Amino acid sequence: MSAEPRWDPNFTPYVVNAMGPKTPERARVILGSLIKHIHDFAREVELTPAEWMMGVEFINSIGQISTPIRNECHRICDVIGLESLVDEIANKIVTEQGLSPTSNVILGPFWSPNAPFRELGDSIIQNPLPNGQVTWMHGRITDMETGKPIVGAVLDIWQASANAMYDFQDPEQSENNLRGKFRTNENGEYFWYCYHPTAYSLPTDGPAGVLLNLMDRSPFRPAHIHLMITHPDYATIINQLYPSTDPYLDIDSVFAVKNDLIVEFKPKTDDPKATLDLEYNVTMALKKHHPNPNSAPPVSSFERFNKGQKL
Amino acid sequence: MSAEPRWDPNFTPYVVNAMGPKTPERARVILGSLIKHIHDFAREVELTPAEWMMGVEFINSIGQISTPIRNECHRICDVIGLESLVDEIANKIVTEQGLSPTSNVILGPFWSPNAPFRELGDSIIQNPLPNGQVTWMHGRITDMETGKPIVGAVLDIWQASANAMYDFQDPEQSENNLRGKFRTNENGEYFWYCYHPTAYSLPTDGPAGVLLNLMDRSPFRPAHIHLMITHPDYATIINQLYPSTDPYLDIDSVFAVKNDLIVEFKPKTDDPKATLDLEYNVTMALKKHHPNPNSAPPVSSFERFNKGQKL
Repeated sequence: MSAEPRWDPNFTPYVVNAMGPKTPERARVILGSLIKHIHDFAREVELTPAEWMMGVEFINSIGQISTPIRNECHRICDVIGLESLVDEIANKIVTEQGLSPTSNVILGPFWSPNAPFRELGDSIIQNPLPNGQVTWMHGRITDMETGKPIVGAVLDIWQASANAMYDFQDPEQSENNLRGKFRTNENGEYFWYCYHPTAYSLPTDGPAGVLLNLMDRSPFRPAHIHLMITHPDYATIINQLYPSTDPYLDIDSVFAVKNDLIVEFKPKTDDPKATLDLEYNVTMALKKHHPNPNSAPPVSSFERFNKGQKL
Repeated sequence: MSAEPRWDPNFTPYVVNAMGPKTPERARVILGSLIKHIHDFAREVELTPAEWMMGVEFINSIGQISTPIRNECHRICDVIGLESLVDEIANKIVTEQGLSPTSNVILGPFWSPNAPFRELGDSIIQNPLPNGQVTWMHGRITDMETGKPIVGAVLDIWQASANAMYDFQDPEQSENNLRGKFRTNENGEYFWYCYHPTAYSLPTDGPAGVLLNLMDRSPFRPAHIHLMITHPDYATIINQLYPSTDPYLDIDSVFAVKNDLIVEFKPKTDDPKATLDLEYNVTMALKKHHPNPNSAPPVSSFERFNKGQKL
């Protein structure tokens, strides 16, 4: 056998150029790039027929375990960092002056469009658990450039309970337990009661578990609180907050930790309702700074579930 | 927004390096390259969250339509040329003198390990159809370097019937209709009766059909006869023969046409049993010339079906 690459250099262009004239232009760009990268990958590692067939079976297994409320391909994409990367490409804001607002990270599959509005100072804990650590969470939303408070911003919070399950994963939780929307007051402030978050594992009974095991990686995510912060004039921020003491910060199984999202929970002694205090302030950028100001966040599994089941 | 790429240059290495020390070395190579190419693809086309989610749903749909006898991911790989490329990487033989044997192409999903041995001169047509064009097929197998005949080579032939269906797709066909194994005689010759092949479409009721339609491509394959040629001393050849008059030669939906596999069917007037004559000669290379002399062909869907159902 020859030592040089022996493969037809015209093959990949031939496959890409097989696309006909009615291919939509954006599809041509995306599929052309995808085919080229898949071919380059196969040549780079000299993928064998047996390895290729393992990959074929693996991809078939992704859809086979998926259901209207389980999106295994979404999870696989998280495990290889693709959702985080797509989020960065879509949403990263850096002005010419080098200013950036509070970081965005992935939405994840557990957001619900149905969280109720609650009053500032309310608790999102509808079903208390004995080991839940109640936290007084508060902060201020300001404009990234002017520092002025943003009045009427909506903060949508969701989190797993102290048993590491979200409301719709757990028959013991009432709908919208640990979910709620709040509007900032005239000083741009918000405040509520929630839980210190609890770390949890991705489900490992499917292909994502097979892949994580093969890669010798932990399936755990660091504990986190999800936030979606919206305002008509400002670019939406979707992010997650992580306790600074969490052991999984450096090995998040979905690669969604950013430094400005690591927060300090402090003991609270002046409130019989809470044992912890979390101050978390947010800066937002005007929509004009966003690369895609009108882009919608990805539709979550849960939203699709609702559409399929109820609408 | 800035015009320069704004994305964290450390992100992809961070994801790749998350693999732990127990990752098998070959898995590390394959997954590292695959993750890098998927990330590069996403950055190159600036994949949007909505486009990414379309891809997620598409991949989930591949497994959802697959069954023990339908391997949709295999078909998707064929449509993007990946099976052909993997076949070329695994099996292309070019000696230092520039010699190559008869071309290899993909096995496809319709090979059966159960084809019966038949006598030279027999017909593989167990269930004749009125529109079938019976062909006297014959030829000689020789050594690529010496030109000497190869005695005792086994030719395994399989083909769709004149209704474009294989035996196990069609309840009207008996098992092993249009399949058979033949051994070359003392002159390296083989001869049998078969059909002129019939073109057929890939199934378009699943994701492969969606993809072909998006790419504005025909789902048709050119008509072909499958062959697998084996001998203990020679590198196995798996290929397909295409009539030179076929209209799909340049647009094969699975990219498996090679020039030396295009053959001429000629009228035959001296045999009441056949109306066409096909001479097809093969050159084989000693195993030492094969890049992976002991590699097995990929396991076909049909073989997996048998394993699941009968063994």
